[in-house]
Amino acid sequence: MKIEMICTGEEVLAGQIVDTNAAWLGNVLMEQGFETSRRTTVGDRVEDLVDVFKERSQYADIILVNGGLGPTADDLSAMAMAQAMDVELVENTQWSDHLKSWFAARNKILTASNLKQAFLPQGALMVDNPVGTACGFAVKFNRAWLYFTPGVPHEFKEMVRNQFLPFVKSKQLNGQNVIVDKLLTLGMGESAMAERLECLSWPEGVTLGYRSYMPYLELKLIGRDVTEQVRADALQQACDALGDSVVAQHQETLAAEVHRLLLASGKTLAVAESLTGGMISNQLVAFAGSSGYLKQGIVSYCNAAKMTLLNVSEQTIADNSEVSLECVAQMAQGAAKALGENFAQTDFAVATSGMAGPASPSDTMPVGTVVIGVKFGDQVVCQTLALSSDRSRQYIRELSTAVALDMLRRAILGLAPVANYEYIKRVAEQSF
Amino acid sequence: MKIEMICTGEEVLAGQIVDTNAAWLGNVLMEQGFETSRRTTVGDRVEDLVDVFKERSQYADIILVNGGLGPTADDLSAMAMAQAMDVELVENTQWSDHLKSWFAARNKILTASNLKQAFLPQGALMVDNPVGTACGFAVKFNRAWLYFTPGVPHEFKEMVRNQFLPFVKSKQLNGQNVIVDKLLTLGMGESAMAERLECLSWPEGVTLGYRSYMPYLELKLIGRDVTEQVRADALQQACDALGDSVVAQHQETLAAEVHRLLLASGKTLAVAESLTGGMISNQLVAFAGSSGYLKQGIVSYCNAAKMTLLNVSEQTIADNSEVSLECVAQMAQGAAKALGENFAQTDFAVATSGMAGPASPSDTMPVGTVVIGVKFGDQVVCQTLALSSDRSRQYIRELSTAVALDMLRRAILGLAPVANYEYIKRVAEQSF
Repeated sequence: MKIEMICTGEEVLAGQIVDTNAAWLGNVLMEQGFETSRRTTVGDRVEDLVDVFKERSQYADIILVNGGLGPTADDLSAMAMAQAMDVELVENTQWSDHLKSWFAARNKILTASNLKQAFLPQGALMVDNPVGTACGFAVKFNRAWLYFTPGVPHEFKEMVRNQFLPFVKSKQLNGQNVIVDKLLTLGMGESAMAERLECLSWPEGVTLGYRSYMPYLELKLIGRDVTEQVRADALQQACDALGDSVVAQHQETLAAEVHRLLLASGKTLAVAESLTGGMISNQLVAFAGSSGYLKQGIVSYCNAAKMTLLNVSEQTIADNSEVSLECVAQMAQGAAKALGENFAQTDFAVATSGMAGPASPSDTMPVGTVVIGVKFGDQVVCQTLALSSDRSRQYIRELSTAVALDMLRRAILGLAPVANYEYIKRVAEQSF
Repeated sequence: MKIEMICTGEEVLAGQIVDTNAAWLGNVLMEQGFETSRRTTVGDRVEDLVDVFKERSQYADIILVNGGLGPTADDLSAMAMAQAMDVELVENTQWSDHLKSWFAARNKILTASNLKQAFLPQGALMVDNPVGTACGFAVKFNRAWLYFTPGVPHEFKEMVRNQFLPFVKSKQLNGQNVIVDKLLTLGMGESAMAERLECLSWPEGVTLGYRSYMPYLELKLIGRDVTEQVRADALQQACDALGDSVVAQHQETLAAEVHRLLLASGKTLAVAESLTGGMISNQLVAFAGSSGYLKQGIVSYCNAAKMTLLNVSEQTIADNSEVSLECVAQMAQGAAKALGENFAQTDFAVATSGMAGPASPSDTMPVGTVVIGVKFGDQVVCQTLALSSDRSRQYIRELSTAVALDMLRRAILGLAPVANYEYIKRVAEQSF
């Protein structure tokens, strides 16, 4: 079965927005075991739309069309489809009635532009949109079913999940049961990972896929018609082969995993950030419920802040510099008890310092020198990393945040906080 | 002149990576006055590549092909192009010599896979890649010039800027001088902005474009063969029409503008974040040199942190709650002098608190209630916003960060910190 996608809209074609709908759909289809064979992106000109509908409908079995169903003058998908098929646009009274009551319930006036959204090519099947005013529709033309969806991402996703995917499955003769297991990894490149995994033997029905979420790399184990036991064994084999690089299962980010573990543990956290400058806190606060464990975060960007807010000693900085194992150890200790005698210390604390670049103010310490410490119990475990100095400031800060979160994750789980990653170079390690 | 783009790679088609190269190219071409008429995305199968080269070369004048020039087995663009044209792949000795010395200089072994990158379709023009091992190439086939570029983003962008754009311009008969002026705006929707701007009269040669960088919207004034005076007048007319919504010129983010202003002013900053949880600090620390003004940031996520680190009074929280004008005023004051008597107060401070959702713990305060304060001189100006409660936690936090940065920007410039935005609802305002 050949599946294609047609994306419409000048703003997509001219790069005014990045087409995340397209990537999202490709990924969702892949995870359900379907392959996309082509994606065509065109602007808003009627003749271009008519051409592409006529052309692609000769090659594909199912075409998802995205965009052009709104109320404005440049929303032309229904009209172009009608023109391609040489039929009229006719009012779908089910949808126009729905629009009338939707607008009435909100005390809004239903304009002619809105009513336009209920006009579909003759013979089209209306597809419900429970979250917006643009209904979708499906038409059979030449070899293909063309399935029209709105461009607004949350409306599009809702319609794909609840209606398009079941539609695709209903057209498939030999349905397969596809389940995808995902491992989030850190510190191993795609070619190194492929080398380790592809020399192993994998059970029939299990294939591997990779997805990059910088600085993470996700490994997918795509199982087609396999038993639970086969899935579990394959997952175990992947975890064994990748070692410390595996940082979470079925999570898109390490922050999500740390959030889950901290909430479940009932423990508390403090953060002290110099190099990462608020990135660690920000990634955790992104999740609802983070106030349950995150007590305080301190962006100690100047040395005075390190000394007064975190109680780092002046001597430590003078002797070792602010980018030192000693300094982050004191930062982590200071963060945990930053609220003073009257409040309990936090159970965990994490601290970062380093040279993010692009230039280093130090002769002896190159850009990419990063120190990270994690406090748990009475201990602070710290390490110094030498990240590639030719990477961007943003990359160095994101990778440092990821390693800090991983040290924290490992400490929460009772593992040694310092892990071995394939491409992240550690130059020192010390416990205080 | 018809320009198209062909994107190749299973990982792009299946959504394993989002195709930012495509959006970037569309935008760069648009800013140079060129329109893209179609984009086709295909996987790595040779027959699909051959088909798409044969097909699109009949309709376009110039086709940029992206991806498939690497050393691995699934890099098939050159082979597919040769097959489409029915010619051989031949060694380009200029590039193979370059590869030999490149590998020798790095003490690396030149493998057969790497050498493959020097084999181009017979008759192709080699295109230099100064930053990678994959050279590009251009061939004339049917109506079109097909211009092949590597998928690695920084190699791709380098080649487009320095070689593809001059190539496109050389093929254009009536060259135009295109200059784009960009205004970054906040708090006005695209349709409201279009309504305000499109009823004005614009000089010949000036057209408008929009680009969304959530929560910002960029307005582009695209000038074709216009004088400096016409450009300046058009820019002024846009600024007058959009009022407070314009927050920067020629900057992609408001953080970049605040960074620039703070560096230029020589003034210092402290940040106290509850709702935004480190996002403000993180956006500023993203820029090299931020240590010049950012002294300390405090993520006071629990009330104890607000009281001990920022000196917010217990009574203020008891009387007004932690999401109150009074609380953020004290947070901003406390942030400015967080380092105590021995250190100077910072010149500016900004503080946030609010309900990010998805659920509100309060009966009286809905999700989307946000308070922000900015301190300058002896004054703290604060406002309460009522953001849409049906937007995501992430959106509420990003929009709050944007408004906080804009209040800070206005204070640095000596403007009243509280601005009027079209879609951001203010419910209270107070100075302390």
